Amino acid sequence: MTWGPQEHTGLTPVEAGVTAAAGFRASGVAAGLKPSGKVDLALIVSDAPAGAAVTTTTNLVKAAPCVVTERHAANGSARAVIVNAGNANACTGSEGIEDALATTREVGALLGIAPEEVLPLSTGIIGVRLPLPALLGGIPAAVGALSPDGSDAAARAICTTDAFTKSVAYRAEDGQGACTIGGIAKGAGMIEPTMATMLCVITTDAPLGGRILAPMVRQAIERTFNRISVDACGSTNDTVVVLANGATDRPPGLATFQRALEAVCADLARKMVEDGEGASRIAELTIGGAASVDDATTLARAVAASTLFRCMLAGADPNWGRILSAMGTSGVLFDPDRVHVTIGGVAVCRFGVVTSFDPAQASNAMRKAAVPIHVDLGLGDQQVTFLASDLTAEYVTFNTEYTT
Amino acid sequence: MTWGPQEHTGLTPVEAGVTAAAGFRASGVAAGLKPSGKVDLALIVSDAPAGAAVTTTTNLVKAAPCVVTERHAANGSARAVIVNAGNANACTGSEGIEDALATTREVGALLGIAPEEVLPLSTGIIGVRLPLPALLGGIPAAVGALSPDGSDAAARAICTTDAFTKSVAYRAEDGQGACTIGGIAKGAGMIEPTMATMLCVITTDAPLGGRILAPMVRQAIERTFNRISVDACGSTNDTVVVLANGATDRPPGLATFQRALEAVCADLARKMVEDGEGASRIAELTIGGAASVDDATTLARAVAASTLFRCMLAGADPNWGRILSAMGTSGVLFDPDRVHVTIGGVAVCRFGVVTSFDPAQASNAMRKAAVPIHVDLGLGDQQVTFLASDLTAEYVTFNTEYTT
Repeated sequence: MTWGPQEHTGLTPVEAGVTAAAGFRASGVAAGLKPSGKVDLALIVSDAPAGAAVTTTTNLVKAAPCVVTERHAANGSARAVIVNAGNANACTGSEGIEDALATTREVGALLGIAPEEVLPLSTGIIGVRLPLPALLGGIPAAVGALSPDGSDAAARAICTTDAFTKSVAYRAEDGQGACTIGGIAKGAGMIEPTMATMLCVITTDAPLGGRILAPMVRQAIERTFNRISVDACGSTNDTVVVLANGATDRPPGLATFQRALEAVCADLARKMVEDGEGASRIAELTIGGAASVDDATTLARAVAASTLFRCMLAGADPNWGRILSAMGTSGVLFDPDRVHVTIGGVAVCRFGVVTSFDPAQASNAMRKAAVPIHVDLGLGDQQVTFLASDLTAEYVTFNTEYTT
Repeated sequence: MTWGPQEHTGLTPVEAGVTAAAGFRASGVAAGLKPSGKVDLALIVSDAPAGAAVTTTTNLVKAAPCVVTERHAANGSARAVIVNAGNANACTGSEGIEDALATTREVGALLGIAPEEVLPLSTGIIGVRLPLPALLGGIPAAVGALSPDGSDAAARAICTTDAFTKSVAYRAEDGQGACTIGGIAKGAGMIEPTMATMLCVITTDAPLGGRILAPMVRQAIERTFNRISVDACGSTNDTVVVLANGATDRPPGLATFQRALEAVCADLARKMVEDGEGASRIAELTIGGAASVDDATTLARAVAASTLFRCMLAGADPNWGRILSAMGTSGVLFDPDRVHVTIGGVAVCRFGVVTSFDPAQASNAMRKAAVPIHVDLGLGDQQVTFLASDLTAEYVTFNTEYTT
């Protein structure tokens, strides 16, 4: 798995995001859930029953739509995904579950499918009950607007604080056959997936049932969404839904499909970090020379969560001591005296102590949209690359003023 | 242990911080380590050999002065503490150890005591070697300026980004006798003690050897410094030194002494949070109804570390969903449906769901310097009160511009 779209060899980028694959339609309409009046209700529908794999947040405080989506996808199949922004339907008790179920009943009735074939996703404010009349009132329009060209409207409708929509699709082809896979996602705060980040819907025309899809999705998420952090705050509503409707008659091999799935997840995850609340740049943080992938991931997560590291990234300040200090509190054992650190290609620390690097040169090397930072532990041959956004005053201002 | 100075019954506040106890002198001079030219070198000396207890950071990346201070205090006694600001002498390898030892040799020679009786503490930038000539050059002036009135100068000299000095002292008296105990400390960033926060020197005239002092200090720190967080970033240089020289001839009982020690630690710890980098207010965050103190502490630490919680505190926004969401990712098991949350005296969440509280009233209740927030888990009878500062744009601006 690589983080750069240009490195997805053998995959051809295509348009239309979540409706790129044959047999999917989508829409985005305004149901009055966002105070701004913008589109806030997205519907994604497969024309035929589809294999489905779902992962939701590991947060103990799990939102009602996550509970219902897991329940409805438990049999490995689904037809429709209904997503609302503006309200997370989290911390809403049994009434929240009822509200989510009512949503699936309305969508099911209008589409002529069972409510259990509908997966509800929500994002927005926590602790406030869904405005159900508005939501239900918007569903007929969402059904009416369903179109193979509806991906952009759906991508816009699921955004909350996102500065741009997140959409990607690839055509994957090998000697055996071909398929299309694409998806949409939203960020932009409360992002430190320990499962997956916020909302993401991926569709493919490959013929894959839920039972084979599930482990493939788990692996893709482990390598992509679980290796990013905006603010180290794990959400109550994280959900990734993958639907595979088998509309293609000559699919590629499973290995090719897995690669395409990971490419879609990687690209969407990277967009989330790039659009992290207030983010001015991101770090491509590689922890190498580790004894295990778990160790490398834990260390990377600790660095990415450090407000001091994130400030130094914002300030283009090669203050590498903050990286070592954050690693030292992670609980992972390593030998500080073996550590090398390179920032933007400049070696700033060798064997745990400062090199004779030029601070101005290192600072210049950090003044770009994505800064490669490489930490070598000198212990083993495992490595992980993690994406982290910086911390700016804009993030703080934004989250100080959010709600009430 | 309580966080409010007014609640330390039986203790009488006195002046003079780290020199309040009989037989201690201190000084603070400018050795040229701070670019500002302000005082940056503090010396605290006991006229007689003193029992000593030391705790330093649990960060795996431990600064050279922490290593030397632990080694020198291993026999439970010490005479002098030399503290420099402006440079942390961390990530400086074996040369850093040599620099710290050279400092203790110079102090020892001028005071006529063994280098092993001198404890070196450092704070400031990580990863840069100590400017040893400047530091050694400042020591004669520090020795010459030693005075029973030197606490304020010492308190100023150890500050880095602190907005105010942190100094406190009490006279503790019971039927058995009396003693004085006081100390100075510094904050203000990289503060999430998993041992103790940054630098703190406490002196007392009670006659306590290092072996009895050590467990008393451990308990006091566990209940005070380990229950605060500014930015969830554990430092490489955290150190608390307690010196007891026995200058009083009729000391109080051990229970009274322990209470006084905890009062000094609590007051200094609270000042650190109040002076957290960029802090505009603090939360007195109580996690109650817990099955264990460990659970309550872990949950409180998770909430205090959440940038979203800290932003809501800054914005006086009773967005309690962020508290539950942060708790849900802490790894501690609890039942969200049993949780009650009260913010500034306003019940905002009962049994995991929102109450019919008035957001404007709750927001007003948060517009004060210290906001009591009470979370009841409904599981047991253990509780912990943790102090956390808010996150403001000033913190970010400050740490974006620090160094280079």
